[in-house]
Amino acid sequence: MKIITLGEIMLRLSTPGNTRFVQSDAFDVVYGGGEANVAVSLANYGHDAYYVTKLPKHEIGQSAVNALRRFGVHTDYIARGGNRVGIYYLETGASMRASKVIYDRAGSSVAEASVEDFDFDAIMEGADWFHWSGITPAISANGAALTKAACIAAKKHGVTVSCDLNYRKKLWTPKEAQAVMKDLMQYVDVCIGNEEDAELCLGFKPEGTDVSSGKLDLNGYKAIFEQMRAQFGFKTVCTTLRESFSATHNGWSALIYDGKEFYQSKRYEINPIVDRVGGGDSFSGGLIHGLLTKKTQGEALEFAVAASALKHTINGDFNLVSAEEVEALANGDGSGRVQR
Amino acid sequence: MKIITLGEIMLRLSTPGNTRFVQSDAFDVVYGGGEANVAVSLANYGHDAYYVTKLPKHEIGQSAVNALRRFGVHTDYIARGGNRVGIYYLETGASMRASKVIYDRAGSSVAEASVEDFDFDAIMEGADWFHWSGITPAISANGAALTKAACIAAKKHGVTVSCDLNYRKKLWTPKEAQAVMKDLMQYVDVCIGNEEDAELCLGFKPEGTDVSSGKLDLNGYKAIFEQMRAQFGFKTVCTTLRESFSATHNGWSALIYDGKEFYQSKRYEINPIVDRVGGGDSFSGGLIHGLLTKKTQGEALEFAVAASALKHTINGDFNLVSAEEVEALANGDGSGRVQR
Amino acid sequence: MKIITLGEIMLRLSTPGNTRFVQSDAFDVVYGGGEANVAVSLANYGHDAYYVTKLPKHEIGQSAVNALRRFGVHTDYIARGGNRVGIYYLETGASMRASKVIYDRAGSSVAEASVEDFDFDAIMEGADWFHWSGITPAISANGAALTKAACIAAKKHGVTVSCDLNYRKKLWTPKEAQAVMKDLMQYVDVCIGNEEDAELCLGFKPEGTDVSSGKLDLNGYKAIFEQMRAQFGFKTVCTTLRESFSATHNGWSALIYDGKEFYQSKRYEINPIVDRVGGGDSFSGGLIHGLLTKKTQGEALEFAVAASALKHTINGDFNLVSAEEVEALANGDGSGRVQR
Amino acid sequence: MKIITLGEIMLRLSTPGNTRFVQSDAFDVVYGGGEANVAVSLANYGHDAYYVTKLPKHEIGQSAVNALRRFGVHTDYIARGGNRVGIYYLETGASMRASKVIYDRAGSSVAEASVEDFDFDAIMEGADWFHWSGITPAISANGAALTKAACIAAKKHGVTVSCDLNYRKKLWTPKEAQAVMKDLMQYVDVCIGNEEDAELCLGFKPEGTDVSSGKLDLNGYKAIFEQMRAQFGFKTVCTTLRESFSATHNGWSALIYDGKEFYQSKRYEINPIVDRVGGGDSFSGGLIHGLLTKKTQGEALEFAVAASALKHTINGDFNLVSAEEVEALANGDGSGRVQR
Amino acid sequence: MKIITLGEIMLRLSTPGNTRFVQSDAFDVVYGGGEANVAVSLANYGHDAYYVTKLPKHEIGQSAVNALRRFGVHTDYIARGGNRVGIYYLETGASMRASKVIYDRAGSSVAEASVEDFDFDAIMEGADWFHWSGITPAISANGAALTKAACIAAKKHGVTVSCDLNYRKKLWTPKEAQAVMKDLMQYVDVCIGNEEDAELCLGFKPEGTDVSSGKLDLNGYKAIFEQMRAQFGFKTVCTTLRESFSATHNGWSALIYDGKEFYQSKRYEINPIVDRVGGGDSFSGGLIHGLLTKKTQGEALEFAVAASALKHTINGDFNLVSAEEVEALANGDGSGRVQR
Amino acid sequence: MKIITLGEIMLRLSTPGNTRFVQSDAFDVVYGGGEANVAVSLANYGHDAYYVTKLPKHEIGQSAVNALRRFGVHTDYIARGGNRVGIYYLETGASMRASKVIYDRAGSSVAEASVEDFDFDAIMEGADWFHWSGITPAISANGAALTKAACIAAKKHGVTVSCDLNYRKKLWTPKEAQAVMKDLMQYVDVCIGNEEDAELCLGFKPEGTDVSSGKLDLNGYKAIFEQMRAQFGFKTVCTTLRESFSATHNGWSALIYDGKEFYQSKRYEINPIVDRVGGGDSFSGGLIHGLLTKKTQGEALEFAVAASALKHTINGDFNLVSAEEVEALANGDGSGRVQR
Repeated sequence: MKIITLGEIMLRLSTPGNTRFVQSDAFDVVYGGGEANVAVSLANYGHDAYYVTKLPKHEIGQSAVNALRRFGVHTDYIARGGNRVGIYYLETGASMRASKVIYDRAGSSVAEASVEDFDFDAIMEGADWFHWSGITPAISANGAALTKAACIAAKKHGVTVSCDLNYRKKLWTPKEAQAVMKDLMQYVDVCIGNEEDAELCLGFKPEGTDVSSGKLDLNGYKAIFEQMRAQFGFKTVCTTLRESFSATHNGWSALIYDGKEFYQSKRYEINPIVDRVGGGDSFSGGLIHGLLTKKTQGEALEFAVAASALKHTINGDFNLVSAEEVEALANGDGSGRVQR
Repeated sequence: MKIITLGEIMLRLSTPGNTRFVQSDAFDVVYGGGEANVAVSLANYGHDAYYVTKLPKHEIGQSAVNALRRFGVHTDYIARGGNRVGIYYLETGASMRASKVIYDRAGSSVAEASVEDFDFDAIMEGADWFHWSGITPAISANGAALTKAACIAAKKHGVTVSCDLNYRKKLWTPKEAQAVMKDLMQYVDVCIGNEEDAELCLGFKPEGTDVSSGKLDLNGYKAIFEQMRAQFGFKTVCTTLRESFSATHNGWSALIYDGKEFYQSKRYEINPIVDRVGGGDSFSGGLIHGLLTKKTQGEALEFAVAASALKHTINGDFNLVSAEEVEALANGDGSGRVQR
Repeated sequence: MKIITLGEIMLRLSTPGNTRFVQSDAFDVVYGGGEANVAVSLANYGHDAYYVTKLPKHEIGQSAVNALRRFGVHTDYIARGGNRVGIYYLETGASMRASKVIYDRAGSSVAEASVEDFDFDAIMEGADWFHWSGITPAISANGAALTKAACIAAKKHGVTVSCDLNYRKKLWTPKEAQAVMKDLMQYVDVCIGNEEDAELCLGFKPEGTDVSSGKLDLNGYKAIFEQMRAQFGFKTVCTTLRESFSATHNGWSALIYDGKEFYQSKRYEINPIVDRVGGGDSFSGGLIHGLLTKKTQGEALEFAVAASALKHTINGDFNLVSAEEVEALANGDGSGRVQR
Repeated sequence: MKIITLGEIMLRLSTPGNTRFVQSDAFDVVYGGGEANVAVSLANYGHDAYYVTKLPKHEIGQSAVNALRRFGVHTDYIARGGNRVGIYYLETGASMRASKVIYDRAGSSVAEASVEDFDFDAIMEGADWFHWSGITPAISANGAALTKAACIAAKKHGVTVSCDLNYRKKLWTPKEAQAVMKDLMQYVDVCIGNEEDAELCLGFKPEGTDVSSGKLDLNGYKAIFEQMRAQFGFKTVCTTLRESFSATHNGWSALIYDGKEFYQSKRYEINPIVDRVGGGDSFSGGLIHGLLTKKTQGEALEFAVAASALKHTINGDFNLVSAEEVEALANGDGSGRVQR
Repeated sequence: MKIITLGEIMLRLSTPGNTRFVQSDAFDVVYGGGEANVAVSLANYGHDAYYVTKLPKHEIGQSAVNALRRFGVHTDYIARGGNRVGIYYLETGASMRASKVIYDRAGSSVAEASVEDFDFDAIMEGADWFHWSGITPAISANGAALTKAACIAAKKHGVTVSCDLNYRKKLWTPKEAQAVMKDLMQYVDVCIGNEEDAELCLGFKPEGTDVSSGKLDLNGYKAIFEQMRAQFGFKTVCTTLRESFSATHNGWSALIYDGKEFYQSKRYEINPIVDRVGGGDSFSGGLIHGLLTKKTQGEALEFAVAASALKHTINGDFNLVSAEEVEALANGDGSGRVQR
Repeated sequence: MKIITLGEIMLRLSTPGNTRFVQSDAFDVVYGGGEANVAVSLANYGHDAYYVTKLPKHEIGQSAVNALRRFGVHTDYIARGGNRVGIYYLETGASMRASKVIYDRAGSSVAEASVEDFDFDAIMEGADWFHWSGITPAISANGAALTKAACIAAKKHGVTVSCDLNYRKKLWTPKEAQAVMKDLMQYVDVCIGNEEDAELCLGFKPEGTDVSSGKLDLNGYKAIFEQMRAQFGFKTVCTTLRESFSATHNGWSALIYDGKEFYQSKRYEINPIVDRVGGGDSFSGGLIHGLLTKKTQGEALEFAVAASALKHTINGDFNLVSAEEVEALANGDGSGRVQR
């Protein structure tokens, strides 16, 4: 299937192993970013995934293009120009020491791109799905304009639209976010977000639920999902549920609601976590694949949760797993026996 | 003691850390293989361990010889010639992501070796023990012929013979395996294998036991051990018991039966696992040392289980521990306090 | 505040990852040592920490100086000369395999230094705190003489003195230790040590307490703390409590007693441990900062325990955390959520 | 332009830096092979380069596909299946110590591929150029059959065909080579080869020329080129001229002849050489680009020689340079001044 | 001596060895920048070198501070705040392939710093020398304002001022440069620059000299030096002379003129070059040390040229050599015999 | 042949690539030392080379044993015990920057070994050759005693004795050296040394020869060789001739004299040098092999010079080349063409 994703791909500079920023004499280099990560997941599952962004003409920009090509993402719609590739620095924690991210993304090529850099009609022509996250409109007014133009074109071409709300406090305030995001929700069919995103991006405060307290009130989630559907007309609402015991040990599951069935997935104990950055994106990638190819939303969600559980065991932003590997885990083989 | 092992030593190409095959730009290089791993264990425990195989004359073959020499294995009986060193690629998993092995071993020098490449009479002269595994006869008809010739020579020279059944589905079918293995059992004094090996190599299906279900029916094991002894005349039968909770967390213990006493070892919780490849071989190495030097089969088994638990914390196929380190763990010091 | 520490900084040669000594073709290089580690902690918390030692003039000596400067420790009082930098080799364990340390420190510049190499009057002038550990007098008679001279100067200048007893069996016998240490205790205001240190360095055997048995008798600790205060006149006595489940999993807490309040800290579960060397030193560093800046000994102890829990997640001897990071953990955020 | 190349892409396992095989504990991993290297060059110059081969379905096969995609080569025509990826081991020399290659390529998927694995009509449809080398027919009878089928399809679709003779003594004898190659020459428009290739593959012995003697007889080259054109109907014949002073210092130039003009390129002094493997392939890639886009064969040759001179400074088989970089060198800027 | 330098220290991300940007999965990390490099040289020669800049409060900013502290530079005058650390990407060439630098420095903390961030009166109090380069005023209007404020304070406190003109075409046009630089020259005592800098920054075109042509007209240099002194009142003018044979082979020498003597240094053949970035800065550092401590400008220049020749053999921006090592080379020992 | 070498094998800690000591966060680890290097050469050429030394029982000592075993040296005669493995730190230079060695070898196990640790009668029984260097008696009085005891036993068993004078100024003064060495010369058949060694160890000053001046007076060498033979009764005297142009570019040749023929070898231009440590030892190893197996001293010398020229291209102390590779170079193939 032809699937479009739009956003920023960044240069990720991470300290090797568990070394801290102040003790590191080298950075591991990968490229990643919310929607790019989704695109790689979808390419791995056999789809024609296209990534839409803008990157400088120099070799660092080219390396970002190459990272996508390497894993089968189509880069035909990437505009070239502008000044810089956005950067994020990553230090990977352990036990009670959390991982740290330092962003240095202001002024990136895509944050300064204009709608004219892209032919969204051509891009959406024949597409089956369009995915974006709340990061793209947050990076700049240009980013918000690109997102809206893409949504309009998607709807014009009958493309299903999914959005991962993904609130980022370093990029905008709740007020700024809501001013942009509420308007964009009219184009969204499938909405992905946890309670925090809902509150900060959309102004909803789910009742009776507090993930950080450790208590999980499923009725509360159902209530907020119903309200979100009612107000914005989403077909499907879903969220992941992360239980953070430590930087290296999490619980992981998810919920989905299509107005008929409120479905809760299996729960995975992830210990140790190798790299949890991109965990949410791998869920989105799995969900899109699931909703496009599975019979029920429950099966789709189980695929998405298994896919994203596996992501936590893989270095880098990209979830480098095949559909077969995800199916095997979703079907119950998590014993970790050597596959010879 | 002079101890002979026979088999294939392979070039192991493993991705660094937990990286996947598709994201790796370098391979860590070690050499290993079932019986070679046993030989290294025995050299570490102070025995005169000899490894019998065939390797090409080029530098990759030489590097395999050097890997054995480095850890004190005698390489005098290694024939040189043929075309290639067998390879296995290893990707190390984490949490619910299993480790993966890709074999590329067809056409290796030892798989194409002939009985004439070795003087088994000289090799077995003065030997105290001969160990082989089910992999050696599985790699080729030549491999099966070598194994048989070695067994015959061993018996002629009064050498105790042990065999780790070690069924490998990539190398042969159960039917092929049983055709070869049942015949070879006549030479075996000590048989090592789990229920799966017993069924696939020897045609036994232990009753009331299903390790993969998590339930452990000791009576079932005793029954199958008794049957194995009855049919093939083994003096001793034993097996390891692996509980796979995840790729990085296993339970580990073992059983032994000499016709008189059915003994179950202590159980170790291994978490995290550093590298579980070679875990079974390190058990065989520990068992041979134990049976040669300890007063009871129980002490021998405890040494073997402690040795192989330690192996799971060591990179590479080889179990690089001393007898003193194994004794310390078998005697109860698993606290992991720094040894200054 | 001006804080003085005195001791030996060593070249630490550690095998990468979990590799064993016999399989390693490279060593990671950092510099560290009990009191130097304390000095780095204090520099990180914003103090003017000075390290007093002697190092050769050559580039290995210079590298040790640079390691201290890099993290903000003042090196003005370091004497240069002598023959060698002491070395310790470190192999990092996992699960039931313990980490191993091999010392090669005899004949180091500071072990052969004389009191004349230092102007302790100038060093202690204006200082707020002086910290040393039982390792410094243990390395040589010269080391003991330096320690005594420093203590005398500290007292002359009204400087608070803390000592981490830190018994090392490779450096001296209990008899030798007590001959030196009992005399030095007259200068100590704050004494840090576990029950083993107390017994071996000071001749005390706490009753009813056996950390290695896993049972924790708090009354026993209080009793011994009271005896220590009575005999040596310490203002404050404290100890860490390490529960060693494996090389990678420990429990961690601490006790403090100032004659009025016997306070037990929160307990941390550390799993996985990245590097536990320097854990005790980071406790000392945190405690000195806490006692200098917090309102109660309880707050000071909580800072010290949180600081040293974090140390276990950091490679190298030095505890590279800020006061803000320690406060956050002491205040309860150990969830390990990514900090963006 | 649409350009087709056909051949084997191998896993290259090279020792880091200048280490020897017997001292290396890791291999650097890249993928490469004669025609794949040409394809990457052409993708770098902006062409639609397609690589035709067969690779196993497992992750090592996938990694080879990814390596091509990363650098923009189209992989649509790659068949998947078979048993293994061919391997070559590389040790990089220095000064008078030559680099060493050990091949382990027998039984690779493409060596066992059949003509039915490929739809050469579809592949050649709309193509502008087809390039192959003497290695492809040499790897197996299947390889020779594939080459012939591809050549026939190319001619049917009016595609220009180039061949790099590239005799490899490990793969076939001169007699075997000539039996296959002389027949295939009927399809070739542009023939690339040095005097050794000509003699061993085609049975020609150029007179008065002996590159290994250091003397360069241009008249001799012209004579042989004329004979080659006369006998096989090549439109263009060319060769590189390598002067091997040491493993790290070479002279590099080339000759071309189209029946009218005998043109000799500039000569480059390459010192130090970083990696000379793939030097000839980068010449072929540059030549194809040159002949497709430049006005004269002289300009084409200068592009090809500059491109391949640059290759010697780049790690790996692939020549990762842009057309702009090649032009700059061909136009005379070899000063190596930092480009800021 | 107290020596002040002012400018930007950047994060340098360089590809390992000779790998190209597009093939690199890791970056080596060092920190460097024109004036910071000078400060490190001076600290190595035993001076109290202070670096003045502004850096963010986060850990990347802290790492830059630590890099300076590690090598003995005083960081007391560094302001903390702002958004980012400027970056430059470096790919190291070989033979005819030039090294490449990609700048990503817009918006760095120091480029957005204001004069109020620094107390230049306190900074220049008691200083012996102040050095800056043409990069500092080029990075932004703020940078130019900082430079002017520092120069005025320096002159007020009687501090000698040196300037390395160092024209950078990525930062400003010749017109912009001259508008700023001509004004700043009134404060400069010692001017360092090659003919290109002179023309682009100051509007001078030296006659009869063309370094890039390979011809060296010393009379032309003397003429331009005389004109520069006449117009701007410099006490001393000097320049390095780089002969670029390739990226790894340069000739290196320098000229100095104080109005009386026109002195040409020895010439060094540097082959191979390890890292030529910072070569010019190491010359400035050596020159300042030389002019402050040597009897003649000729001795000063010989020290500076030897120091900067050595820099070309050292990785990173910083010239990590001692005065003793520089003297030894300046005195003629360039044989490279092992120093045991 | 059975060949004995005696001396100290050290842990070599070298900075990676060309990094300086003060910038290195890791050390490459190999083991080496004059006579151990000779033993490895001889094992590579197929001899039964035995290394005699003493090493601690701990894992660093074991690693030294393993390094020898890996390359085929017999370690049966190595005594175990004592306190430490001697260390040398190595920083590899480039161009005009020399390599640096810092020794930390005092107090090593072999320096404190006694004659009783070894059974020299058993060691020399059946031996064909005994080699030692001037380093062994220089490390301590014990080292000198060991050397003498070994020489006496060698002579008793009719073993040919060779000595590489190898004066080391860090270990003893010329006076101390001569006091020991002159006495030991009575046992020496083949003496290897340059003019500096001759003067400092034996009190000879060759006339008319000054290698450091670049002039080579062969008559001077012949004169000194004749004197050496006359005074000490050497059968053969030889020396290498190193021309140090830079740390990375040397000329290399050698001279030999047996009283009849004064033979000068071919001269090699080595550029670049990868690692010149062990160059002299590889000459000794080649010479012993040559004298044992070649027809003339000239052929022996050519083998030795070619072997040691190759050593300069190999990392580590050991010369990891086969006799075939040495022969190929000695016979003229230094073109560095890839060997496929």
